[in-house]
Amino acid sequence: MRIGLLTSGGDCPGLNAVIRSAVLHGIKSYGDEFVGFRSGWRGLIEGDYMELSRQDVRGLAREGGTILGTSRTHPYNHPKGGPENIRKAMRRHDIDAVIAIGGEGTLAGARRLAVDGIPVVGVPKTIDNDLKATDYTFGFDTAISIATDAMDRLRTTGESHHRCMVAEVMGRHVGWIALHSGMAAGAHAILIPEQKVSLDQINEWVEQVHSRGRSPLVVVAEGFIPEGAEEAVAGKGQEADGRPRLGGIGEWLTHQIEERTGIETRNTTLGHIQRGGNPTGYDRVLATRFGIKALDLVHEQAWGHMASLRGTEIVKVDLAEALDGLKEVPLPRYEEAKILFGR
Amino acid sequence: MRIGLLTSGGDCPGLNAVIRSAVLHGIKSYGDEFVGFRSGWRGLIEGDYMELSRQDVRGLAREGGTILGTSRTHPYNHPKGGPENIRKAMRRHDIDAVIAIGGEGTLAGARRLAVDGIPVVGVPKTIDNDLKATDYTFGFDTAISIATDAMDRLRTTGESHHRCMVAEVMGRHVGWIALHSGMAAGAHAILIPEQKVSLDQINEWVEQVHSRGRSPLVVVAEGFIPEGAEEAVAGKGQEADGRPRLGGIGEWLTHQIEERTGIETRNTTLGHIQRGGNPTGYDRVLATRFGIKALDLVHEQAWGHMASLRGTEIVKVDLAEALDGLKEVPLPRYEEAKILFGR
Amino acid sequence: MRIGLLTSGGDCPGLNAVIRSAVLHGIKSYGDEFVGFRSGWRGLIEGDYMELSRQDVRGLAREGGTILGTSRTHPYNHPKGGPENIRKAMRRHDIDAVIAIGGEGTLAGARRLAVDGIPVVGVPKTIDNDLKATDYTFGFDTAISIATDAMDRLRTTGESHHRCMVAEVMGRHVGWIALHSGMAAGAHAILIPEQKVSLDQINEWVEQVHSRGRSPLVVVAEGFIPEGAEEAVAGKGQEADGRPRLGGIGEWLTHQIEERTGIETRNTTLGHIQRGGNPTGYDRVLATRFGIKALDLVHEQAWGHMASLRGTEIVKVDLAEALDGLKEVPLPRYEEAKILFGR
Amino acid sequence: MRIGLLTSGGDCPGLNAVIRSAVLHGIKSYGDEFVGFRSGWRGLIEGDYMELSRQDVRGLAREGGTILGTSRTHPYNHPKGGPENIRKAMRRHDIDAVIAIGGEGTLAGARRLAVDGIPVVGVPKTIDNDLKATDYTFGFDTAISIATDAMDRLRTTGESHHRCMVAEVMGRHVGWIALHSGMAAGAHAILIPEQKVSLDQINEWVEQVHSRGRSPLVVVAEGFIPEGAEEAVAGKGQEADGRPRLGGIGEWLTHQIEERTGIETRNTTLGHIQRGGNPTGYDRVLATRFGIKALDLVHEQAWGHMASLRGTEIVKVDLAEALDGLKEVPLPRYEEAKILFGR
Repeated sequence: MRIGLLTSGGDCPGLNAVIRSAVLHGIKSYGDEFVGFRSGWRGLIEGDYMELSRQDVRGLAREGGTILGTSRTHPYNHPKGGPENIRKAMRRHDIDAVIAIGGEGTLAGARRLAVDGIPVVGVPKTIDNDLKATDYTFGFDTAISIATDAMDRLRTTGESHHRCMVAEVMGRHVGWIALHSGMAAGAHAILIPEQKVSLDQINEWVEQVHSRGRSPLVVVAEGFIPEGAEEAVAGKGQEADGRPRLGGIGEWLTHQIEERTGIETRNTTLGHIQRGGNPTGYDRVLATRFGIKALDLVHEQAWGHMASLRGTEIVKVDLAEALDGLKEVPLPRYEEAKILFGR
Repeated sequence: MRIGLLTSGGDCPGLNAVIRSAVLHGIKSYGDEFVGFRSGWRGLIEGDYMELSRQDVRGLAREGGTILGTSRTHPYNHPKGGPENIRKAMRRHDIDAVIAIGGEGTLAGARRLAVDGIPVVGVPKTIDNDLKATDYTFGFDTAISIATDAMDRLRTTGESHHRCMVAEVMGRHVGWIALHSGMAAGAHAILIPEQKVSLDQINEWVEQVHSRGRSPLVVVAEGFIPEGAEEAVAGKGQEADGRPRLGGIGEWLTHQIEERTGIETRNTTLGHIQRGGNPTGYDRVLATRFGIKALDLVHEQAWGHMASLRGTEIVKVDLAEALDGLKEVPLPRYEEAKILFGR
Repeated sequence: MRIGLLTSGGDCPGLNAVIRSAVLHGIKSYGDEFVGFRSGWRGLIEGDYMELSRQDVRGLAREGGTILGTSRTHPYNHPKGGPENIRKAMRRHDIDAVIAIGGEGTLAGARRLAVDGIPVVGVPKTIDNDLKATDYTFGFDTAISIATDAMDRLRTTGESHHRCMVAEVMGRHVGWIALHSGMAAGAHAILIPEQKVSLDQINEWVEQVHSRGRSPLVVVAEGFIPEGAEEAVAGKGQEADGRPRLGGIGEWLTHQIEERTGIETRNTTLGHIQRGGNPTGYDRVLATRFGIKALDLVHEQAWGHMASLRGTEIVKVDLAEALDGLKEVPLPRYEEAKILFGR
Repeated sequence: MRIGLLTSGGDCPGLNAVIRSAVLHGIKSYGDEFVGFRSGWRGLIEGDYMELSRQDVRGLAREGGTILGTSRTHPYNHPKGGPENIRKAMRRHDIDAVIAIGGEGTLAGARRLAVDGIPVVGVPKTIDNDLKATDYTFGFDTAISIATDAMDRLRTTGESHHRCMVAEVMGRHVGWIALHSGMAAGAHAILIPEQKVSLDQINEWVEQVHSRGRSPLVVVAEGFIPEGAEEAVAGKGQEADGRPRLGGIGEWLTHQIEERTGIETRNTTLGHIQRGGNPTGYDRVLATRFGIKALDLVHEQAWGHMASLRGTEIVKVDLAEALDGLKEVPLPRYEEAKILFGR
């Protein structure tokens, strides 16, 4: 078969490892040929692609980003998009099937195309860990690793100056990165979009820790909104993509804490470093297994399905399942983390 | 309650994070008191312990090793051991329950004590990932991370000299570390105790890769035995604890490959660095959750049970289940990795 | 002798290594006793200190921050400060000499005290590398290491999205961190306080790189002011201490580049992570050698002098020399870096 | 000009950064053309090379190893070597000058060729830091960084088991890596080829530390020979290149310490990981500056000279100077480190 690969939406570490293993598996096990579409669906729609030989994917397991480039083009909104045009483009360039690697939007597009008869399978990508149909995807562990390392650093400088340190991490709709990195770094408060917490409560936690002679560490997901301050922070979390944003919640919170508690407080917005660079071993293994599975799905003609992690197994799930709402941090996980807050 | 903690067997990153979260949870949620037994079961048997206050566990989530020290003392083999003596020791020092953190041997001891009426719960520790009753435990991810980083380094020097690089990793009975780190590093051959592979096959893989102008990377678990060379390597894997061993399988293999293929080959035995240092974010989260769960098990009086990871949940399992044989790498996982070998 | 140590000004990785080696050297070579003043000069002035035994400095070579805490208290401005009070405080607590570890302000205070007859020696600390009397000090290399790692990450995500990435690093008055980390990361423009560059020139560099299909990386020191935009950025670099500041030069530049070139541009302000966490091997060696030298200076009674690096040697220099103006990036070093800019 | 580059001898991190900056500088500042000879002098002698465009050196500052490959071919020993043949080869392939990047052997070859009229300049490479004519070269700092990180890990596992840990690092003739990494890691004994130390003295240090309840860390350079045990270890340090060697000094010492002190002792031979992988920021800056300087030397026609670091400056030195004996660890530096040993 001649198979096209594309990466779409925000990049994250592990995309290249998916591409590499799918290509190697296809060449070695099935004698497939591969092309890589440039900049996501745009490359497919506009016929902008490169051949992908074994040589081209060499050494990619450890490289961050995506050699194919990515964009936010949607297959149905592009003027030359839609199933008819895409079918023609595939025929014109001799493409038998497409592997689409991306997040919720990408997978929604893939599913709609599959329903419309295009032979497409998916690989889930979400650095925020917000997809229901998979336990984890690649990129999340790398983000945790980077954020944990940064917070370890913030703690030593915080302790030296007896300051409160605020760290803003990714997570517009869900708080998984904040929850895991905050727990790993021993944070004294973790603030996530799923849980309402008032500024008074936050300040109480900060003061409790400070009064024990410690330097409080507050981890906040970019999408968190303090209870009772919805209007004050409105407009802070709205940018379409712009991580990190000007005057995000981390900065806002920093000023509020300092003003109300009198404790010197400093913000650090981790921003784009969370999604760049070499993937962790964990993410490379997961991405490699996803790539292998995606290629198998193509040969099973399991259109409209994607690779997914369940426990320790890689399984096939319907894309419809993947799109059935956000995976939020459940209350028990937050309560578990909360044990270590404040006092 | 007044609860005693002990760490037993080989150390691994995350032990301190378990201790920290159990102690913090107990103090904050239940008003418990804690003591830490020094050097595993020995400390319990000999009444050698220290009080563990909140202050003592401060900052421990990120510290490798164990502040309690560890040993291989077995609770039934020690002259002053056995349930009667241990019950008396606990009464003498006012200990209501014990949390034993350790591997198969430790958990077997804990189970036998629980059956004999001692109030003990377990936390599974195995850097090799060889326990059936849990998907993963802390330490394994850190080992993968260290091994993957080391192999990334071996690859650049290997490529510069057109050499074959052999990396020996931990895994006396199971090949999980070799499998995951090898897959992460893009190894051209992964050799594990569960799978017989002949020297001829290994050399074929090495030559295939070398003939493509690449530098082959061979990852071998310390317990691997090449098919047909059982006698030649006998005595190489026998040391009770001694990682890394003199003239281990990595060195043996290196000489065989070089001699038979004529390709310059170098061995690196990663050894003890795989089990030291700061845990990864992943391992800190897992260890923290295990510590919290273990404390809850104590308050549930779930003696003879342990904390375990299933998918994304921390659950309670009977220690008997944890002891029901080794968790080996199943054939499908090896076949999946094999796709990327050789040619 | 009974010697007091203090750390003052902004913290940086290596302070603890200085403390450790001075204490170990004194105890082992001379039979000295040590105390550590809490929070810089404040601790000395107010008699707030702890005894420092060998046990207390154990393992400190690798720990970031300072176990003594730090503050910006000045020995002459504090109500109970000044040489008379300090002499009395030292007599009261039996302190024979003081080792002051800090930056320009701290060393200026130390020098004035020495002139006024107080037995004090210095250890230079400047994460920005802005002291003339020493080739480098500890902390700088760690900052370079952290910034370089962050920029490696920014590049992969930048390339995936064809974006321009801006990274703001520390350096209010001098551009050493920007120069070295930018050169290490292969930046396409490096902007430092010492060199006037116009926004048009910056945009030209960005566009040249973008037109070659690359993702431009612009590294900017927080104290950089674009030529011709002095008024526009006024007030952006004024905060007494506040790294990173709200709406710093990185954010300002990001908006300007995006607006004028039409190239999607993202800012990351590295902020406090640059000064936290474990020191690099380089900084640990340098800090350890400085601590040993400082102790020797005490026993030489070389009051008013400090330890300094010249080439590969640690030498004694007069504090007056250390205070003779800022060490700026000289033009030839900037020209050398500029070779790799733009086109 | 049309300039040829070659890397020769053992690889180390930073070689690619030299290549990149020389090529970019030449293309942008002088309009030069570049070729890269494959596998050191062999490529030059046999006319085996590739053109090096700007595209080919993209992103190389951070990549370990050398894209040109390396070998130990000597320009005068090769059957087709010698100045006459090399001059002809250069004429045949239109090469105006050669930049040779390598260690003592490589630079000796370059010097002899320059004396014989070949237009060649050098860049010093020595991971061991054993060249007199430069304060440091690239690769050394990366090796220190890797070894320090490994020792940090060894310490936590050592402390948990109350073991003595031995770490063997590179350094066949000089002990710089052992000295710096051992000082950075807080080693309790550092053993280097330049200093005779008896086994009794080593054991005394180990026992002193162990008796204080600590876990001793002994760092040994591969070329160290214990006083009075010259015959016993003969043959352990002789392999032409074979790092790490079978049964090196680390293993030998481990057995001796364990046998004589009764303290459980474990060896780790760091081996090839010390020379692989991404260079540190420090090494990237140094290598980049060396590459720029080397290109300037070519345009100055400073044949028989090389780039060198003196303090913070890159200067020109005669290759003769670089070859004037090994740079050993001087006694004062060893005495300085010794302050922290043992007791």
